[in-house]
Amino acid sequence: MSLLVIGSVAFDAIETPFGSTGKIIGGAASYISLATSLLHNRVGLVAVVGEDFDFDFIQTLNNRHVDTQGLQVKEGQKSFFWHGKYHMDMNSRDTITTELNVLGDFDPIIPQDWKNPEYVLLGNLSPQVQLTTLERLETRPKLVVMDTMNFWMDIALDDLKKVIAKVDVLTINDEEARQLSGEYSLVKAARVIREMGPKYLIIKKGEHGALLFGEENQIFFCPALPLEEVFDPTGAGDTFAGGFVGYLASLGRTDFDAMKSAVVYGSAMASFCVEKFGTERVASLTMDELKERLALFEGMMKL
Amino acid sequence: MSLLVIGSVAFDAIETPFGSTGKIIGGAASYISLATSLLHNRVGLVAVVGEDFDFDFIQTLNNRHVDTQGLQVKEGQKSFFWHGKYHMDMNSRDTITTELNVLGDFDPIIPQDWKNPEYVLLGNLSPQVQLTTLERLETRPKLVVMDTMNFWMDIALDDLKKVIAKVDVLTINDEEARQLSGEYSLVKAARVIREMGPKYLIIKKGEHGALLFGEENQIFFCPALPLEEVFDPTGAGDTFAGGFVGYLASLGRTDFDAMKSAVVYGSAMASFCVEKFGTERVASLTMDELKERLALFEGMMKL
Repeated sequence: MSLLVIGSVAFDAIETPFGSTGKIIGGAASYISLATSLLHNRVGLVAVVGEDFDFDFIQTLNNRHVDTQGLQVKEGQKSFFWHGKYHMDMNSRDTITTELNVLGDFDPIIPQDWKNPEYVLLGNLSPQVQLTTLERLETRPKLVVMDTMNFWMDIALDDLKKVIAKVDVLTINDEEARQLSGEYSLVKAARVIREMGPKYLIIKKGEHGALLFGEENQIFFCPALPLEEVFDPTGAGDTFAGGFVGYLASLGRTDFDAMKSAVVYGSAMASFCVEKFGTERVASLTMDELKERLALFEGMMKL
Repeated sequence: MSLLVIGSVAFDAIETPFGSTGKIIGGAASYISLATSLLHNRVGLVAVVGEDFDFDFIQTLNNRHVDTQGLQVKEGQKSFFWHGKYHMDMNSRDTITTELNVLGDFDPIIPQDWKNPEYVLLGNLSPQVQLTTLERLETRPKLVVMDTMNFWMDIALDDLKKVIAKVDVLTINDEEARQLSGEYSLVKAARVIREMGPKYLIIKKGEHGALLFGEENQIFFCPALPLEEVFDPTGAGDTFAGGFVGYLASLGRTDFDAMKSAVVYGSAMASFCVEKFGTERVASLTMDELKERLALFEGMMKL
């Protein structure tokens, strides 16, 4: 099944209590593309970078059969850059710098080959760009999954709600679910958000796991793997979303049972992501390693 | 299998954003006795109250086949009293009043019938009283489960460690596990705490579920039921511990697989506890209601 991914491909600089990086590869769609392409071989990427980008990374994606026809390279411009610093508990962070650069006026051009994808993952981006992407498709995909964050709730809530109304699955974290719904209880929040459009809602709770809500009060809970060390949480949510939709696309299913397994795949992949800075660990991840970790999850969940 | 419970039987006054109570029944062993006695009919209670206590509650326990021979009633003295106020998020609380009263010099007298229990639950109490209880038993029980809290880590850490060294299962919350071990990662915390003595450690994470750690890196995770409303969290941890050990005693097993199911029983019972003020909901809970909720847990966990 063809899977179209849109999101940022960018540079990050990350500081954690364990150390800091210079400019490294970042961006939602970078993590997503790496995660999906381990599980599935029909992935197309729509994104934009500047001429300063590290094109070895694009080669890496191509080697993993990610089709990068939809990646625009803007001459004379710079790639999106985010510089952030995590606090001691690794659960909160400060943004030190955000340079929008090429993302400031990103016009998502969908290659003709990718105008009829069966699965779409709208990675975290401006809701307007997410909406434009959907509008430029020629057929309604079998499944549209959307990731977003509180930033867009703060500054573009109306646009955000327009996209949310058009997607099948929304993935956000617990604080975002509370903000978006105005409800503290996640059960109530899920009800309010599902009434906004998505049949399915995934609430990501970081070290506390993930909740999948579906029709008729269906709930599935996947724990996070308790880890010795969280080295760098950047990209864990993107990797989760990539693993989730990559698994579904590889299976060709969109039912609740398939989504339950997909949440476990996403959680397992995210548990690797946080082990090293940036995309490094997801990029080196093998299917054997993933299968071993999936067995750990199953052991932890099985009565 | 005989199950000995020790802990406070007391009065509470509780304020939450939803309302406040006058003096109502509280105390760890009150919740524990109600929870265990739904699952098991050979429960003995060791506790102390003043002459001001509400003896209808003791009658309730007797009606549920809890043997209260070990309940001391101190004439001319008052029962332990705690008055607390929960914050808006229901995850933190302030103590407004603590009156130790009869708990100040509680000398746990074990009736002869209860000196050889097969299962023991040391509910939250001064570590010195927990230790004395164990010392007064004539034979080593098959399983000793201990619950405690940060208060004792702050003021009686040495005594606390002496008890911890003698128990099989310790149940504490995530912040307490971090405080006791000096480790932020719960995996590392579990390793440190298990080296202090207990073969098994249960880390209660409230709305985020519970982790059971056993030998050779065994880990089991039980989610909490996502709730519409948390009305009053008081006693949820005690009810969890009561459900956990009550289930094990009713089964007569102490292996890891049995403990996994016991954690689900404890979690299901705790999910009822928070629905009403104080002990009210646990006291009215039926096996049919419990079984229905256990099925919800299984549905939520099953791949």
